[in-house]
Amino acid sequence: MSRSLAFLIEYDGTDFAGWQFQPNGVSVQEVLERAVEECFGVVVPVVGSGRTDSGVHARGQVAHVHVLDGANTIPTEKVALALNRRLPRSVRIRKVVDVPADFHARFSARSREYVYVITDTPSVFDMRYAWTPSIPFDRGLLGNAARIFVGKHDFTTFSKLNADTASYVCDVETCRVETLSDRLLIRIRADRFVYGMCRAIVGVMFDVARGRRSLDDVTEALRDRDRRRVSPLAPPTGLFLNRISYPHGIFEHEPAL
Amino acid sequence: MSRSLAFLIEYDGTDFAGWQFQPNGVSVQEVLERAVEECFGVVVPVVGSGRTDSGVHARGQVAHVHVLDGANTIPTEKVALALNRRLPRSVRIRKVVDVPADFHARFSARSREYVYVITDTPSVFDMRYAWTPSIPFDRGLLGNAARIFVGKHDFTTFSKLNADTASYVCDVETCRVETLSDRLLIRIRADRFVYGMCRAIVGVMFDVARGRRSLDDVTEALRDRDRRRVSPLAPPTGLFLNRISYPHGIFEHEPAL
Repeated sequence: MSRSLAFLIEYDGTDFAGWQFQPNGVSVQEVLERAVEECFGVVVPVVGSGRTDSGVHARGQVAHVHVLDGANTIPTEKVALALNRRLPRSVRIRKVVDVPADFHARFSARSREYVYVITDTPSVFDMRYAWTPSIPFDRGLLGNAARIFVGKHDFTTFSKLNADTASYVCDVETCRVETLSDRLLIRIRADRFVYGMCRAIVGVMFDVARGRRSLDDVTEALRDRDRRRVSPLAPPTGLFLNRISYPHGIFEHEPAL
Repeated sequence: MSRSLAFLIEYDGTDFAGWQFQPNGVSVQEVLERAVEECFGVVVPVVGSGRTDSGVHARGQVAHVHVLDGANTIPTEKVALALNRRLPRSVRIRKVVDVPADFHARFSARSREYVYVITDTPSVFDMRYAWTPSIPFDRGLLGNAARIFVGKHDFTTFSKLNADTASYVCDVETCRVETLSDRLLIRIRADRFVYGMCRAIVGVMFDVARGRRSLDDVTEALRDRDRRRVSPLAPPTGLFLNRISYPHGIFEHEPAL
């Protein structure tokens, strides 16, 4: 009897080589698959909604597994506890639910949301979780730059080349700057993200906010689909995969940033 | 020409063997003395207001140094920047001020305040900065237990034996439980703390809050000055040296928990 389970996952990406299996360095996927193997006695892939880069954190990564319910039957409500006992403290399963057999963490996802956390009063207690830009910037220009990316665009300019990517067209539903107590948040929600896109968008937003590039220049660069017109990528520090949305609203009431 | 400087220091204690020099493991004091040596070209002690245990954090540790102003004259307002460049990211000088030659970070201090941060919704992002007790407890009893310690008491029962400690009498000005959004804070302010006292007090408070010990039993244990009547120490995770008060109000307007 096969069961399909979806996991809501939180991780500190600082010490991982990103979400996806890597020959060099430990990935989040790897420690999860090991924990699933120990709990269920089967080697199965843990399929995530998408990759995150090395150093990028997640509050709301979602993954699915198909486990054959053999010797080790664990009731769904106890799976999170059983997995967490076997995971490093930097990865935590927040919730586990049963899903239909055709649920796919990546292909069923309707949208992904990333949040970039920025502070100008850096503290040792959030050195991993917030970015402090060293060069002054204009908050208003940052917001204006964000609006350029809203809508359906080809993001070739603001992505890394990836042989597996057939299309660079993404529909950006939200790209805006918010204030949360003494922090700035940059929230970007899209149907999909291509490789490097989030950090490339934030990087060019800061070039605008520092007066290094004009809004027209960035609008044109986006239209040009020319990777030479990118700005330096923003660092992974402070970037969180915040929430994945699915048609049936799985995990949608769980708190996020 | 000799200058006396006071530092307001923040550190993540997770990866340090505590504040004070240790033969095994790197201490916060050691990395600070190295940074001072590199900046000022002199080897001088960095004298803290007191020790913190391995794993205990500080938002408001205070230390002083006497530097001979030789070849390397750094204006006071630039000392923090110069030191921070040479410190690991887990230690940060928040502020530097000139102080009179007789200022002593330890002996001039009027009171010390520790804050213990407790959460029942543990997240990987504050695994180092908050403690999640694994056994349920009664918040009301926790507050009642806190009141036992307010006032001038001999804290022998709730301390570790220390050959250098002549007296275990401490005057506790504040010991209370507060709520901060989804957190509990235990705030303890005293003229002085003896070794292990803060974690011992919080440890026994939780024994009361879990119904393992009565308020009368703890009151009696305090009066008895008998280390066999201690409870398990609370872990260092979640404990912060929050603020040191001095007669002339140095650093008193700096934000703290």
